[in-house]
Amino acid sequence: MTARSTALLTDRYELTMLDAALRDGTAERRCVFELFGRRLPGARRFGVVAGTGRLLGLLADFRFGDAELRYLRDEKVVDAATLAFLEGYRFTGSMTGYREGELYFPGSPILTVEGTFAEAVILETIALSILNHDSAVATAAARMSIAAGDRPLAEMGSRRAGEDSAVAAARACYIAGFGATSNLEAGRRWGVPTMGTAAHAWTLLHDTEEDAFRSQVEALGVGTTLLVDTYDIAQGVETAIRVAGTGLGGVRIDSGDLPTVAAQVREQLDALGATGTKITVTSDLDEFAIAALAASPVDAYGVGTSVVTGSGTPTAGMVYKLVARQDAAGGWVGVAKASVDKNSKGGRKAAFRTLDAGTATSELISVADGFEQLETALSHPDARALHVPLVVDGEVDPAFVGTVGVDAARAHHARVREELPVTALALSRSDPAIPTVYVEQ
Amino acid sequence: MTARSTALLTDRYELTMLDAALRDGTAERRCVFELFGRRLPGARRFGVVAGTGRLLGLLADFRFGDAELRYLRDEKVVDAATLAFLEGYRFTGSMTGYREGELYFPGSPILTVEGTFAEAVILETIALSILNHDSAVATAAARMSIAAGDRPLAEMGSRRAGEDSAVAAARACYIAGFGATSNLEAGRRWGVPTMGTAAHAWTLLHDTEEDAFRSQVEALGVGTTLLVDTYDIAQGVETAIRVAGTGLGGVRIDSGDLPTVAAQVREQLDALGATGTKITVTSDLDEFAIAALAASPVDAYGVGTSVVTGSGTPTAGMVYKLVARQDAAGGWVGVAKASVDKNSKGGRKAAFRTLDAGTATSELISVADGFEQLETALSHPDARALHVPLVVDGEVDPAFVGTVGVDAARAHHARVREELPVTALALSRSDPAIPTVYVEQ
Repeated sequence: MTARSTALLTDRYELTMLDAALRDGTAERRCVFELFGRRLPGARRFGVVAGTGRLLGLLADFRFGDAELRYLRDEKVVDAATLAFLEGYRFTGSMTGYREGELYFPGSPILTVEGTFAEAVILETIALSILNHDSAVATAAARMSIAAGDRPLAEMGSRRAGEDSAVAAARACYIAGFGATSNLEAGRRWGVPTMGTAAHAWTLLHDTEEDAFRSQVEALGVGTTLLVDTYDIAQGVETAIRVAGTGLGGVRIDSGDLPTVAAQVREQLDALGATGTKITVTSDLDEFAIAALAASPVDAYGVGTSVVTGSGTPTAGMVYKLVARQDAAGGWVGVAKASVDKNSKGGRKAAFRTLDAGTATSELISVADGFEQLETALSHPDARALHVPLVVDGEVDPAFVGTVGVDAARAHHARVREELPVTALALSRSDPAIPTVYVEQ
Repeated sequence: MTARSTALLTDRYELTMLDAALRDGTAERRCVFELFGRRLPGARRFGVVAGTGRLLGLLADFRFGDAELRYLRDEKVVDAATLAFLEGYRFTGSMTGYREGELYFPGSPILTVEGTFAEAVILETIALSILNHDSAVATAAARMSIAAGDRPLAEMGSRRAGEDSAVAAARACYIAGFGATSNLEAGRRWGVPTMGTAAHAWTLLHDTEEDAFRSQVEALGVGTTLLVDTYDIAQGVETAIRVAGTGLGGVRIDSGDLPTVAAQVREQLDALGATGTKITVTSDLDEFAIAALAASPVDAYGVGTSVVTGSGTPTAGMVYKLVARQDAAGGWVGVAKASVDKNSKGGRKAAFRTLDAGTATSELISVADGFEQLETALSHPDARALHVPLVVDGEVDPAFVGTVGVDAARAHHARVREELPVTALALSRSDPAIPTVYVEQ
């Protein structure tokens, strides 16, 4: 068990720039960095913001301790003046941004970080790592949650993700509508409900399937779920009901052509009198497979690989760009990279979702080269402001971190998902469900 | 900074099975679990094993402390007897397996875990999380390294991966042939060389591109690499040489049609007399883009998103299966799930790579239902045994962990890659480069 700092979860060039900026005096220039996505992951119709609460929580651990400073000194990454700066580093700037669980669209200014160049530039990697991973998972998860409708949906993909990303993925899925996870650390750290009963190893450990079922029922009660596909599914179902009785809580199927198998198992369970025994399916599901099972007698879904890997799009592709800075005279300048293939909009932004009778109609982004907070006079009376203060002068708002933050994000997502137009719920590749509209000041 | 246990990076059903097994007496049965892939990630021609050293390192932290036990008790995940078992848990079994950096093929028994059911079953999730992630990245990285040939290759994808997976990805890339990473924590923790100079924000921070270049050269010397595509590339190159002189170390290009742009920049640099200034390209590269640049005047590559996400296959899809166990009488039984679509081979395995004049010809896997160590009488005099002892009775071999383990894995990978047949080096989707051949005892 080792203490940990998050400060070196950072690309070297951020510290190299800091080093040079401390020499030439630009380190103290006030800057606005913006975290946004140029497009939605996987040509989806909407994106889901996730990770904000984790980032805010890890800010406190973004400190350079002895081990980190020693490494930077030994490797000559930065000079002595920069080491001294890093030793005292603590983010004292401010962040405003979208609530976690909020929907986003191309260009949405998801997170705005304001501070000196020195204190804001070194947060680039950790901010992007967290938001890109968690939002990719949450975006995929929301589509699966929509496809599952009222049927319970559990995340069980930890084994197909890096061991720490797995915990983050379970959290992101819960925010985006999943009901539970198999990952115990996600339960302990983030309050996500956990579930799970037995693997094929359980059946194989015993001399017979019947021994395994009997032992499981004795340990966990007849309300448990028995995995019936280790050998022959029909035989497994028969044994399960013989051992547990018709009050058996559920059976799980992890292989086969699921629509066919689910129908057969339901028929067999009903014929045996186990009409209340539920069927959970868990074999390589994604949003399309879940949708295809809508008419099948399936009671619950477990999703693994596809959701933790963003269902084909494992990163949201967000970027962290300098959009405004003070000049030498102290005035504000909007800035943006000019290369033709990566147009970025300079200037600080404010963002609003316009609504018509409760349904989203556009992502309205107000751009100003200057720095004043924009309280745009909107022509849409229904518009909802999307930015909230997350960190003020280095103080993180506790409403957005820890398990409280997760619960709030999950509730917020459920609420704002109701604003999506019906066309946004289709699973096929498409343009974003609503247009992004820029209003230049 | 918080102390950490890795024990809850675990799917709940492992503890549920443990709970039931402690009740029915099967917890003490000796078992052999095998970690393997049914197929190669992304229809590649070979896979690269990575993560073993991380897993062995994290075994020491796989302990249930107060926080973990309290969570399990409060959530009623397991009963009091199981909590007592977990409180004293320490893996005392053995592991044999492929060296980290080794090649693997479908069915290769990459890791064999032997111990009681109780102590071995609960390692399933953490073992798979680590091996699946790291091997997916290493497999993609090896292909990029082959495509890059002698040109230096750096990993800079941290921002497109979960913050901890990013560190693991940098490590996996280094093992598979990359020369450096942007990730400082990978440098500190694993000894991977780090690199990086400046982002677009550096140029945008300054009033002019010239100011930015001048300041960078003053801080880092003329050997530095200047990012020249913030505004206009030709202008950027001209400014770079004017500021730094013809001794400038390098320029970096992060946008545009790279074959075209690289040729133009080379021509311009040469015309300016900067014939020794190197060109690094970093814009959305993958193994195919790298291969397509083979004839272009590019000196070094930086790869981000594609390598940390496994270039289309972010998880290796390995599984952890019970393959042999003791029965009630103490005899050994080979076991396997029988469902038609997921054939697994029961029994403990030994694995060999057969070679002909130094070139691999097959993955030879010897299967025994019994438990005796197999010293198969091989007909191939060139065969190389692939299993080495990693953990013996709970003691981890220190040669495989920490920075020593990383260096050994990188060297081993470079060595065994030489055994690949030439056909294995092609990038297109294909069957595995060599067949997997089973020898039943």
